[in-house]
Amino acid sequence: MKNYKFEISYDGTRYFGWEKQPNVETIQGKTEAVLSRMTGRPVEVLGAGRTDAGVHARAMTASAHLETEKTPEEILAYMNHYLPEDICVNDVKIASDRFHARYSAVGKTYVYTCYFGTLKPVFNRKYVTVLDFKPDVSKMQEAAAFLQGEHDFTSFCGNTHMKKSAVRVIDSIEITEKRGYITFRFHGTGFLQNQVRIMVGTLLLAGRGKLEPEEMYKILNGKDRKLSGPVAPAKGLVLEKVDY
Amino acid sequence: MKNYKFEISYDGTRYFGWEKQPNVETIQGKTEAVLSRMTGRPVEVLGAGRTDAGVHARAMTASAHLETEKTPEEILAYMNHYLPEDICVNDVKIASDRFHARYSAVGKTYVYTCYFGTLKPVFNRKYVTVLDFKPDVSKMQEAAAFLQGEHDFTSFCGNTHMKKSAVRVIDSIEITEKRGYITFRFHGTGFLQNQVRIMVGTLLLAGRGKLEPEEMYKILNGKDRKLSGPVAPAKGLVLEKVDY
Repeated sequence: MKNYKFEISYDGTRYFGWEKQPNVETIQGKTEAVLSRMTGRPVEVLGAGRTDAGVHARAMTASAHLETEKTPEEILAYMNHYLPEDICVNDVKIASDRFHARYSAVGKTYVYTCYFGTLKPVFNRKYVTVLDFKPDVSKMQEAAAFLQGEHDFTSFCGNTHMKKSAVRVIDSIEITEKRGYITFRFHGTGFLQNQVRIMVGTLLLAGRGKLEPEEMYKILNGKDRKLSGPVAPAKGLVLEKVDY
Repeated sequence: MKNYKFEISYDGTRYFGWEKQPNVETIQGKTEAVLSRMTGRPVEVLGAGRTDAGVHARAMTASAHLETEKTPEEILAYMNHYLPEDICVNDVKIASDRFHARYSAVGKTYVYTCYFGTLKPVFNRKYVTVLDFKPDVSKMQEAAAFLQGEHDFTSFCGNTHMKKSAVRVIDSIEITEKRGYITFRFHGTGFLQNQVRIMVGTLLLAGRGKLEPEEMYKILNGKDRKLSGPVAPAKGLVLEKVDY
């Protein structure tokens, strides 16, 4: 029985998120089903995190202990053959026995994309959120500066019953604009439920002039989800990378 | 009543092609419905060509005579508001009365994209054809050279009952490879039904070593559809541009 590390891309559009749930399609469910079929016994696939329904990933990392004679290359080929066309295993490696996709992760990059142009993003409409206004990028950058560093992100947590610490570290938030597209790139040690989408929803309020950048300070310190903005739509979000 | 010129992008995945047909969704049908609604009377939208079911366009050109007080900018906004998210009108201009999207066209560019990598193109899977082999690009370039120039393309015409001339001019065929993607770019005066897809299907046979480049000469001169290769899948094809 060896421990394997997987890097997985997926278009989350038609899935109910990463986490396995009864009666609905999820990425974890699909991946476990293929590996169980391959090994002939139940397999548990541990993900680096749980992406929400409709959120995408360029490189989700997962781990699983498998009893198999196949090489990593053969496992990769087997998985891609049986997985649907919107899920792709990019890489399979043998990992140390103690590697755990979630607990071993030390950082994550999430990218959120919006479009504010007058035309419609016909060919990537499933991966961008269309705005009906042109946000002020420098206002959003000012507001984002307040979120960087170590903070209690209770105000940006979708789970209002969370009992554990909501303290996280965000190393960087880069916001760039190019040809009608606005890209938010977040890097941090880890993120709370819906945190990236709530941060984007709140930053967009600043970009729209409905919130002064300085108010981010009060929102953070108020430690109350009611103070922050709405959850931005899932389809604009991509889990870009997990660091170990 | 003025004549208008439209530039339209669409993701053809869920449509039965450009041309209006009863009981199915088509781009012409959608566009005419929106303009008829806008003007309150039936509108005929003339396309530069008829893309097949599942074929995409970055810049289909169309024309229509309309009785309206709206400016071109207002027409554009109206159309994009009522058209679905997989069809976008990029531009609306007033054209001369004699402009006809089909008869005034002097050239067209089509782009066909294949992918031969070991991974799956998760995020653009609706716009590329996945190959299970790595084609020899230089063999395909050699074969493509035989198709350039003025020829009777009967062997590459999907309509085997066509009575009109099948003589067309292809100015250039560029085939390039980049990170597992192969792009075929065709520019010509006009193309027959399924012509681009049959040319791609035949060039891929050359790329696979199942056809010598020199055989293209015989295929062209045989003037028989049975001599050429299969029709490549619709989803890899994009009408890129129409020249006037």
